[in-house]
Order: sequence, then C-alpha cells, then structure tokens
Amino acid sequence: MKSQGSDAVESATAAEGGALRPSSVRKRAAVLDAARALFLRDGFTDANMDELVARSGVSKQTVYAYFGSKEALFVAMVSRETDRAADRVHLDVALPTDAADVEAHLADYGLRQLDIVLDPDLLALRRLVIAHASRFPDLAAAFWRNGPQRAIAALAAHFALMDERGLLEVRDPESAARSFNWMLMGQALNAAMLLGPSGVPDAGERRRTAAEAAQTIVAAHRPEG
Amino acid sequence: MKSQGSDAVESATAAEGGALRPSSVRKRAAVLDAARALFLRDGFTDANMDELVARSGVSKQTVYAYFGSKEALFVAMVSRETDRAADRVHLDVALPTDAADVEAHLADYGLRQLDIVLDPDLLALRRLVIAHASRFPDLAAAFWRNGPQRAIAALAAHFALMDERGLLEVRDPESAARSFNWMLMGQALNAAMLLGPSGVPDAGERRRTAAEAAQTIVAAHRPEG
Repeated sequence: MKSQGSDAVESATAAEGGALRPSSVRKRAAVLDAARALFLRDGFTDANMDELVARSGVSKQTVYAYFGSKEALFVAMVSRETDRAADRVHLDVALPTDAADVEAHLADYGLRQLDIVLDPDLLALRRLVIAHASRFPDLAAAFWRNGPQRAIAALAAHFALMDERGLLEVRDPESAARSFNWMLMGQALNAAMLLGPSGVPDAGERRRTAAEAAQTIVAAHRPEG
Repeated sequence: MKSQGSDAVESATAAEGGALRPSSVRKRAAVLDAARALFLRDGFTDANMDELVARSGVSKQTVYAYFGSKEALFVAMVSRETDRAADRVHLDVALPTDAADVEAHLADYGLRQLDIVLDPDLLALRRLVIAHASRFPDLAAAFWRNGPQRAIAALAAHFALMDERGLLEVRDPESAARSFNWMLMGQALNAAMLLGPSGVPDAGERRRTAAEAAQTIVAAHRPEG
C-alpha cells in the first residue's frame, strides 16, 4: 500500500510495516538519529520530546505518527542500534581453511565482537536499558535477543561449520558458543556496567581476552590426531 | 580504646575501626539489617531514614554516629552483603586428590558460586549498585572487588594448587580463573540484569552451565599423559 500526502497518512505505511517511500525512510532515520543523541545525553526520563522534534527536522505530527510515543521511539531506536551492531559483528565471517589458523581466526572474531559491543554509545544504551528494564521489559528482552542471543546463535553456526570441516571437534556447538561468548564478553560487560568508562578494557586487554578465549576453546575442542 | 556512655561516644570506636563492644556489634548489625530490608524494598532514593531508624530499634543519634549518612550506610550494607556472599563461596574449599575427580569438583564449586551470586537479594543489590554507579563510584568499585575480583583471585589460587599437584596443567592460573569464572557467571549475570527475575537461570540451567564450564576448562588444561 502506497500512501501520499500528509505526514499522518505516511505513518500508516510505517505502522503496517510495509515498504517505506524513500522520503519516509529518510524521515524515520532522522527521528531515530535525533532520539539516539538525545536519549544518550539526557537519559530516558529527562529527554525532551519537543527538543527531539526540533533536532530531527521532522514535524511533531510525523514523529508521533511514526512512533506513537516516547516509549515506542526509545524502543525503536535501541532496536536499530543493536541490530546494526550485531550485523557488523556477525555478517560475512569467512572460515579459515587450515586447522592451524582456527585459534587466530577466533581471536580476530572475538576482538571484533569486543570492539563493537564495547562502543561507548552502545554501552550507555545498555545501561539505560538495564535501568529501565522493569518499566520496559520488552525492550530489555529485545536487547537480549539482538545482543547475546544473536551472538551465541551466530557463533554456534560457526562452530558447527568448523566441526563439519574438521577444523575443531564440537559435539555441542551451542555450548561451545556460549562458553566462547562469555569468556569473551563476561568480564568486559560486567566491569563496564559496574565501573563505568574506567571499567571498559583497553585495546591491549581486549586483545588478551580474545586470545585467551580463543586458546581455551580451541584447546578444549582440538580434533583428534 | 573502650568507649562508654552515650551512643555518640560509642561511635568513636566504630569510626576508628577498633574492636567493638558486643552491644555495639549488635546495634551495628541491627542497623545494617534494617538498611538491607529497606533499600531492597524502596531503592536508594526512596528509602526513608526515619523508617530505617524505627525498624532498627537503635536511636537515630547512634545510626548517624555509626554511619554518618544515608550514602555511607548504603555502602556499608552492600559491602557486608558482598563480603558474606564471597565468604560462602570461597572459604574452605577442599581439593580433590584424583585427577579424575577434577571436573566434578569444579562443577560443584561452580554451582555453589552460581547459587550464591544469583540469590535474588544479591541480584537486586547489584542492580541498585549499577543504577547508582555514577553517583557512588567507590561503592561500585567495592562491589567489583568483593565480587568478580575476589572470585577470580580465589579460583586462580585454586587452579595454581591443582597445577602444583598435577591435577591440571595450568600455566597461567589467573587466565584460567577468568575464563572459568565468566563461562560460569557471564550469561546468568547479564540475563539477570537485562531480563530481571525471568532471566535468572533455574536449577537445571545452573547445573548445565557449571558442568559446561568445568568440562571446557578441564579439557583445555588436561595434564599430559
């Protein structure tokens, strides 16, 4: 269904989840960009919707027609950010051909995941989501699905493929994926949440963590012979 | 130094960290118990100090003389809870004598740690500490030291001893401890923070997680021959 004319009519398409016209896509993105900046600066409660509208350059009518409420806009913005981050970590990962390269490959994969998940803005969003988890349980659940769950599913598929090709011996790919994921992310995420920016591991510590996780998981799943 | 007489004088002893008289120990504990109940129920900001004083059965003067402020009382209460939990996990852990028992031993150790750290009240305190981390950075740092850092140090000593006795081959005990700790705790803590009570693993999932972590770390550090 194509919509024409007023902002309010445009929103019908968005609400139905159909294909958006290019101008709608641009407006939606502008609103989400403004929301990202404002929620990160002011938190959820203090973010002012009038300022958000002014920043986005889109009419107030359209903002509300697209997103319905401040809550829904917050949810849409966080979902977009976590989707994007997950795409950057997990899409287009090539497998090594030689078993001798598996450990270095997993250390690279792990380091990329650490770098993306530990982006300061994404950590600030995670903190916001945790702070409001009881108010927006669906948002927290979406964050969990797009974050750890998607990471573990992608890693499990990766470990299954490595097993198939004889690069590793992995009887339970999801278990290996969980273990690898949390050796990688556990300390960094918990320190970042408790200690704030000073708890976020620096480049050297990230490299060491990724190398340790890769070494342990490869040592535990080395193919026989 | 012994103090006698008024509550205010008693506090001098407490403030100096000297040995407390039994009556002071009891009063201090009563205040901390009341603080625990009230902060858990109302959060930090909404907890009412007059109600806290009434619940504790100790005079207002004494409460302030011992702890100085609501902030300091919150810090003291959280520190006591994390100390106690850490003692319950890490003190008096006996080593197995046979290498064949190491995996089961680590699974038991891990399960005990999971059960204690995932206590609902301790999780609620963790959430409070995260929510107020930027206001009380010292508290968050203390939580980190008493929690993950103490767990990893205790596990590292444990792995070093297992290496010494030939039960495992662990060249870098701290690295092995970090890996084991986060395979164990990473998913549970992150899910609990994001998803609330519904994210806390049940008994079966805890057993599975502890078994997986033990299996992986033992497989990665099996002694030669």
